[in-house]
Amino acid sequence: MECINGLRDEIRDCLHEECGVFGVYNNNDELDVSRLTYYGLYSIQHRGQESCGIAVEDEDVIRCYKQMGLVCDVFNEERLASLKGQVAIGHVRYSTAGASNVLNAQPITVNYRDGMMALAHNGNLVNSEELRYKMGSGGSVFVAGNDTEIIVKILSKNLVSEATIEDAVKQTMRVLKGSYAIVLLLQGKLIGFRDPLGIRPLCLGKLKHSYILSSESCAFSVMGAELIRDVNPGEIVIIDDDGTRSVQTPTPGHSAYCIFEHVYFARPDSYIDGASVYRARENAGRMLAKEYPVDADLVIGAPDSALTAAIGYARESGIPYGHGLMRNRYVGRTFIQPTQEMRDAAVHMKFSALRNEIEGKRLVLVDDSIVRGTTTRVVVQMLKEAGAKEVHMRISSPPVMFPCHYGIDTATASQLIASRLSVEEICQMVGADSLRYLSLESLLKAPGIDGGFCSACFSGNYMVKNNE
Amino acid sequence: MECINGLRDEIRDCLHEECGVFGVYNNNDELDVSRLTYYGLYSIQHRGQESCGIAVEDEDVIRCYKQMGLVCDVFNEERLASLKGQVAIGHVRYSTAGASNVLNAQPITVNYRDGMMALAHNGNLVNSEELRYKMGSGGSVFVAGNDTEIIVKILSKNLVSEATIEDAVKQTMRVLKGSYAIVLLLQGKLIGFRDPLGIRPLCLGKLKHSYILSSESCAFSVMGAELIRDVNPGEIVIIDDDGTRSVQTPTPGHSAYCIFEHVYFARPDSYIDGASVYRARENAGRMLAKEYPVDADLVIGAPDSALTAAIGYARESGIPYGHGLMRNRYVGRTFIQPTQEMRDAAVHMKFSALRNEIEGKRLVLVDDSIVRGTTTRVVVQMLKEAGAKEVHMRISSPPVMFPCHYGIDTATASQLIASRLSVEEICQMVGADSLRYLSLESLLKAPGIDGGFCSACFSGNYMVKNNE
Amino acid sequence: MECINGLRDEIRDCLHEECGVFGVYNNNDELDVSRLTYYGLYSIQHRGQESCGIAVEDEDVIRCYKQMGLVCDVFNEERLASLKGQVAIGHVRYSTAGASNVLNAQPITVNYRDGMMALAHNGNLVNSEELRYKMGSGGSVFVAGNDTEIIVKILSKNLVSEATIEDAVKQTMRVLKGSYAIVLLLQGKLIGFRDPLGIRPLCLGKLKHSYILSSESCAFSVMGAELIRDVNPGEIVIIDDDGTRSVQTPTPGHSAYCIFEHVYFARPDSYIDGASVYRARENAGRMLAKEYPVDADLVIGAPDSALTAAIGYARESGIPYGHGLMRNRYVGRTFIQPTQEMRDAAVHMKFSALRNEIEGKRLVLVDDSIVRGTTTRVVVQMLKEAGAKEVHMRISSPPVMFPCHYGIDTATASQLIASRLSVEEICQMVGADSLRYLSLESLLKAPGIDGGFCSACFSGNYMVKNNE
Amino acid sequence: MECINGLRDEIRDCLHEECGVFGVYNNNDELDVSRLTYYGLYSIQHRGQESCGIAVEDEDVIRCYKQMGLVCDVFNEERLASLKGQVAIGHVRYSTAGASNVLNAQPITVNYRDGMMALAHNGNLVNSEELRYKMGSGGSVFVAGNDTEIIVKILSKNLVSEATIEDAVKQTMRVLKGSYAIVLLLQGKLIGFRDPLGIRPLCLGKLKHSYILSSESCAFSVMGAELIRDVNPGEIVIIDDDGTRSVQTPTPGHSAYCIFEHVYFARPDSYIDGASVYRARENAGRMLAKEYPVDADLVIGAPDSALTAAIGYARESGIPYGHGLMRNRYVGRTFIQPTQEMRDAAVHMKFSALRNEIEGKRLVLVDDSIVRGTTTRVVVQMLKEAGAKEVHMRISSPPVMFPCHYGIDTATASQLIASRLSVEEICQMVGADSLRYLSLESLLKAPGIDGGFCSACFSGNYMVKNNE
Repeated sequence: MECINGLRDEIRDCLHEECGVFGVYNNNDELDVSRLTYYGLYSIQHRGQESCGIAVEDEDVIRCYKQMGLVCDVFNEERLASLKGQVAIGHVRYSTAGASNVLNAQPITVNYRDGMMALAHNGNLVNSEELRYKMGSGGSVFVAGNDTEIIVKILSKNLVSEATIEDAVKQTMRVLKGSYAIVLLLQGKLIGFRDPLGIRPLCLGKLKHSYILSSESCAFSVMGAELIRDVNPGEIVIIDDDGTRSVQTPTPGHSAYCIFEHVYFARPDSYIDGASVYRARENAGRMLAKEYPVDADLVIGAPDSALTAAIGYARESGIPYGHGLMRNRYVGRTFIQPTQEMRDAAVHMKFSALRNEIEGKRLVLVDDSIVRGTTTRVVVQMLKEAGAKEVHMRISSPPVMFPCHYGIDTATASQLIASRLSVEEICQMVGADSLRYLSLESLLKAPGIDGGFCSACFSGNYMVKNNE
Repeated sequence: MECINGLRDEIRDCLHEECGVFGVYNNNDELDVSRLTYYGLYSIQHRGQESCGIAVEDEDVIRCYKQMGLVCDVFNEERLASLKGQVAIGHVRYSTAGASNVLNAQPITVNYRDGMMALAHNGNLVNSEELRYKMGSGGSVFVAGNDTEIIVKILSKNLVSEATIEDAVKQTMRVLKGSYAIVLLLQGKLIGFRDPLGIRPLCLGKLKHSYILSSESCAFSVMGAELIRDVNPGEIVIIDDDGTRSVQTPTPGHSAYCIFEHVYFARPDSYIDGASVYRARENAGRMLAKEYPVDADLVIGAPDSALTAAIGYARESGIPYGHGLMRNRYVGRTFIQPTQEMRDAAVHMKFSALRNEIEGKRLVLVDDSIVRGTTTRVVVQMLKEAGAKEVHMRISSPPVMFPCHYGIDTATASQLIASRLSVEEICQMVGADSLRYLSLESLLKAPGIDGGFCSACFSGNYMVKNNE
Repeated sequence: MECINGLRDEIRDCLHEECGVFGVYNNNDELDVSRLTYYGLYSIQHRGQESCGIAVEDEDVIRCYKQMGLVCDVFNEERLASLKGQVAIGHVRYSTAGASNVLNAQPITVNYRDGMMALAHNGNLVNSEELRYKMGSGGSVFVAGNDTEIIVKILSKNLVSEATIEDAVKQTMRVLKGSYAIVLLLQGKLIGFRDPLGIRPLCLGKLKHSYILSSESCAFSVMGAELIRDVNPGEIVIIDDDGTRSVQTPTPGHSAYCIFEHVYFARPDSYIDGASVYRARENAGRMLAKEYPVDADLVIGAPDSALTAAIGYARESGIPYGHGLMRNRYVGRTFIQPTQEMRDAAVHMKFSALRNEIEGKRLVLVDDSIVRGTTTRVVVQMLKEAGAKEVHMRISSPPVMFPCHYGIDTATASQLIASRLSVEEICQMVGADSLRYLSLESLLKAPGIDGGFCSACFSGNYMVKNNE
Repeated sequence: MECINGLRDEIRDCLHEECGVFGVYNNNDELDVSRLTYYGLYSIQHRGQESCGIAVEDEDVIRCYKQMGLVCDVFNEERLASLKGQVAIGHVRYSTAGASNVLNAQPITVNYRDGMMALAHNGNLVNSEELRYKMGSGGSVFVAGNDTEIIVKILSKNLVSEATIEDAVKQTMRVLKGSYAIVLLLQGKLIGFRDPLGIRPLCLGKLKHSYILSSESCAFSVMGAELIRDVNPGEIVIIDDDGTRSVQTPTPGHSAYCIFEHVYFARPDSYIDGASVYRARENAGRMLAKEYPVDADLVIGAPDSALTAAIGYARESGIPYGHGLMRNRYVGRTFIQPTQEMRDAAVHMKFSALRNEIEGKRLVLVDDSIVRGTTTRVVVQMLKEAGAKEVHMRISSPPVMFPCHYGIDTATASQLIASRLSVEEICQMVGADSLRYLSLESLLKAPGIDGGFCSACFSGNYMVKNNE
């Protein structure tokens, strides 16, 4: 175990990373639950590339393997073979530029008084400091000090004091403030629960007679499972041999689904809280074309997340769509940083402009967001050097001006270009001929569902605060 | 060193892998040649993911590091720092499903009588058996037994017997039959040479006062270098402090450029022998639309290599283009194979159909080739399950019916579906509503250049034979 | 982190492994505390080869690195350089034949309410089950579930409720039953404490103005430090800028030093509780010669731990001493187990008989103990095959008949040959010509000190029980 | 493969390292040849700790695995299982302080014209430069450039030109000058041959119906094989289904067995060229006592290699023998070097003085050699600090004044203390009360055999020169 404890340097180089959870309960089917979890995590790998883990319960013993790295690198046949059982949960964790270590890998597996449990969590508590101090005053110690460890300790206390699992989970949810989508392996059951505002996604699927939980529904198709429904805000779903049982805890009466899942984070083939992510992005692109039309020859999207919005813009505007910018499929792994003389090479490694497609054309470049602006500036320059006559940037969401407190790893406010510069200044900084952002009003309509959304990163309107 | 010598099991699971070479000579610029080679190899990583290596000459000593794995995994700052010098060459090697080992990694570095040399090679000799036997009769031994080892041994012999490097390389080229694009680090010079038919690509670039060789021009843009020209078939280019010097060896008078580089293998932002790969693919798509129009609602391409041809088809036909099929960006690494019950999961891990885009629509699915047909069958089924009313396949090249003898790692004839089944039978097998292939005549026009092409994989017309 | 949680298979292949602790507080000297700890752990490596770790405090932050493996394999310059600070503790842990993992590696580092602490422990609690259940009823969870985790949790609770560190440690010692020698890094101080019977060793050394704690004094000589004294049973030693401060907690008035440290476990150049381990072993050998003389030609010892007793036997008896049995210095690492046909090869790998020394001679083979007898049987056979006329075994301690509950990893009673067979039967089983064991009465006199000893493994008289 | 080619920095920090070879041919027995080779290499691990390898022939295919590291670390069950066959050879290679790499690991496996062969070599050619240049002039290239590669190339040439294996080996031996003990796997046969002077050892053993070759006979006992005889100087032994066949090549009529094998290098339980290594060392100790008696209280030996000579000294002199110096059994692996302030710590890590044994005594410290003297100086100081009244050094061989050209890795002349200082000066430098070396005349009598010995390291009389 590489456990360099101590203060962690919280420097992130980009917006947009969080976590993903998955769980499966084998109900009289011939399922290899660790293998299914492997495929599930593989499908939600985009939610976290730092570390991953799988915990499996087999006759009251929970075995867990977790490690730094991608699912395909961490697990192999031998490892999976050592993780046999009836119920499994898994987790993928985000990647950071600063120090990170296996202490923060999930699931967390502990022995409480009456047995073992494993828990995996996506989200972020806003009252973790307060909870940690309170528990520390009772003599509790923390190894990693992360939210998941806090949740496990509160839950274990409640399991001892409360009569049922439901009550223990309910009592636990009562003190947690913030966002959470949790899968829990306890007493042979698979349990999922979601914060009262439903900030982070969690959905329920079915494969033959067995039930599955996942952060995103895209994990279901790979294994031939079907999406049943989303877990509701504030809902506890308990899965065992009797099927699923639901317990609804109090909610404020409105949801605060994370709109950024639809803008960028989720996979386009997922359905979240009833909305197709693909459709939401195409809609956002269409609305963007209506709000901010431009006279141009070609619409291109920033690969890969903005391609759908670009298609939407192209269709609505009637301007031809094309692939003018190519993403190197080997990027995403670490590579050696260029020296000062080659400081733009990193972006050139990631993207290539296709001269034959863009030369002499007026481009609409659709992206889903601009965080720091440095990559965007190099991309615009790259397109111009490849012969683009004009580059009109259209962003399929409003300016990101505020950090996320609910589990998406945004930069600090000072690093967010939109919190420092006006749209006009950003346009100049990135070297575009024009720059427009979709209005928040339109964006919130894009998913086409009634549910309320959290849009704090655009508006600064945080729906859960520590002191509430 | 993992050197399990012995017979190699030559089973490949797909068409389309070969190698890439790169070299840079620092001429009074402040260049870090190993770092440039790293970036260059990174850019041509698509040409080979099995192993990679960099050799650098520094004051008559050549240091080489090579290893199984991707460029970004094999090299780090420390490794690059240990590879300082004035001239460097590098290599990326293809991936195989069978046993493979570091013995075959390149560059090869040897001591010959008068010093060290390093050589890296893309291509395939057709007379390697004959050469190996002849040299073995003279007492030569082979460690790896691959073409590159043969070439190095012949070259070293000629270096001792011939007066100049040019003569030694010329004499070497005289006995080599087949395809080769070679970079050579020798006596402080960087040397590139290409087979008399120019089957495999090799081009020359310039960065400040320094010269670069690369299999593909896409490597130049990342480092701010410019493409000067392609190395001609049969040409030797010698680079040293005096700049570049060219020696032309005899050629048959016509070229046999590999058409498959344009169809599939090269990166779309590369220019090969004067043709834009992007433009060649878009043209192929347009010609396909003309040859085989179809009444449909949406054109989609098989990611990533067929997207450009799909754009061409859409533009020519006027049918809207869309992203109906998504590629998982984490695939490409090894992952645990599904059990029999989940035998289609491997394809589902690789691709996802976007229901919202394709539901109820008649699709044109453009791909660049069909090798075995198994993946295609699952993809067509996936599209239909996602609601596609019809799936019309259009392939932007003729049926691949013959194995390549010149360096692209095709399956054997019996594995190539088009060598066993008629187009109609393939269509039924993959479950498409119609299937059409671009004519060879059209394909050869797609790059828009005069040069002759090798199209043996389509026609069986091999232009270099062992007994010639 | 490789954290395969779950039941652990407790199969041991030999007696005699436990743990070692070390700590150093830098008091205005120019000491590199992590490097000193590295050398210290290296010197007590014989106390545990499974895992090791070092924790260092630097300005209220404790950094810890621990890993499976030997000290020399786990740590390198880079790792040590990342562990800078003023105070350090370290730990080496025993090796087991069953599953073992990094979860059990020490030191344990946690955050309690008011900061961080690190703790390392040698020994074994006899009331751990009871403590774990009691704490679990209060909601506590355990990750590893080992004694050290229990101790840390009790201590952290007491740190919050008690006014001073002394009181917190005192309260902690009050509830711990069993053996413990502990080093603790807390609030910038180095603290050592030892169970009320002093079962496991712990001693205090001085280097310039700085103080050191170690399981054995042999660690001091390597760094030029001097042995000050042993930490007393029940004593707490607190080391900070003011030097050392001692707090004595209640004891039963007599000690129960582990006699097996002198017989086998400690290094012969260590002094434990005032006795020279070397002298104790030589004395035991001498007493053995007096109690059980034999007419023989050569005395040899079982390498390495019984050589000193053999010297004693030879000197007392006047029979020449020789090296008739050689130990392979590469054994100790894992090696591939022989197949059934070669089942004795493992012993042959470990030992070689020197024919020229023993041929035609009547041997006295001195060993310190016989646990299962299987190795002994092969060794005796080896000596006979090498020409020994007679082999008379003399054991420098009584038969080991009872498992240790205080931290030495003995086999279970049924695995101990002396608990099943009489001395005569053992003699026949191992194929010796005679076999005699030193009497317990003599053994307890061998160290030459007044202190009481724990000899439960010989007598079954356990001095600390759970229900006391 | 980590193949940093280039100049190698030839700095050694100590005398006394070379290589070991092993081979086994399975003749109708049920032998697992790779496993036997594993155990064989394990037994001769002391001959080289840098790298090791095993090559196995199975139906004309030779598979080889070799790697940096100890036998027990490089091989595991899985690796051995992949090396099935009828004949196997193996190699252990020495460790150096300078750069070393897997390119130099053995066995070397190559394809020659008519098949594969594998070869492993212990020794050193004195005409390698000349051979390399001559072969390079014929166009040969070298990857590693070591002696083994040269031998393989010459042999392969001769295999093509000569009618039989015997003739090919004979012709090869004709051009090799220097020392060599070689095992060769070729055409399904196991072949061993030894240089005409027999400088390096090689012996023949038998297990059931199968034959074994090994550098030392100690490898036989572990597998229950018996030593048949030594391979004679200049002899070729060919082993196949017909048993063993011997071919004797011309020799100068006298041998030049390496006397240093007996002094230090070989294992004491080996028999080399008819002499017991153990007996040779005991004899040397006895002669030393006769030549240089001293009035003292205790004889101790420098662990481990000088213990036998110390026993001999004690027996001859009648002075009691004891263990006053202990060797740390974990040393031998790399460990972090102490800083300047702790420059003697490295020796303290390796050895400990046992105060109780030596305090107040006049010691005879027997060692087998003094190379640089730095370690000796610290050991003497350590003994004095532990209370020794006098330390009289007695060395069981003459001063090492000349480098070895025949395969033992001695320091250069300038590093050898005896080539710079007189015995009296060395005595002062190491701080001993007296220092005496065994005479060469006596040493050469110690093994008790008639054969001539090479004693060039003591006398400078090199028996094979390049220009002969």
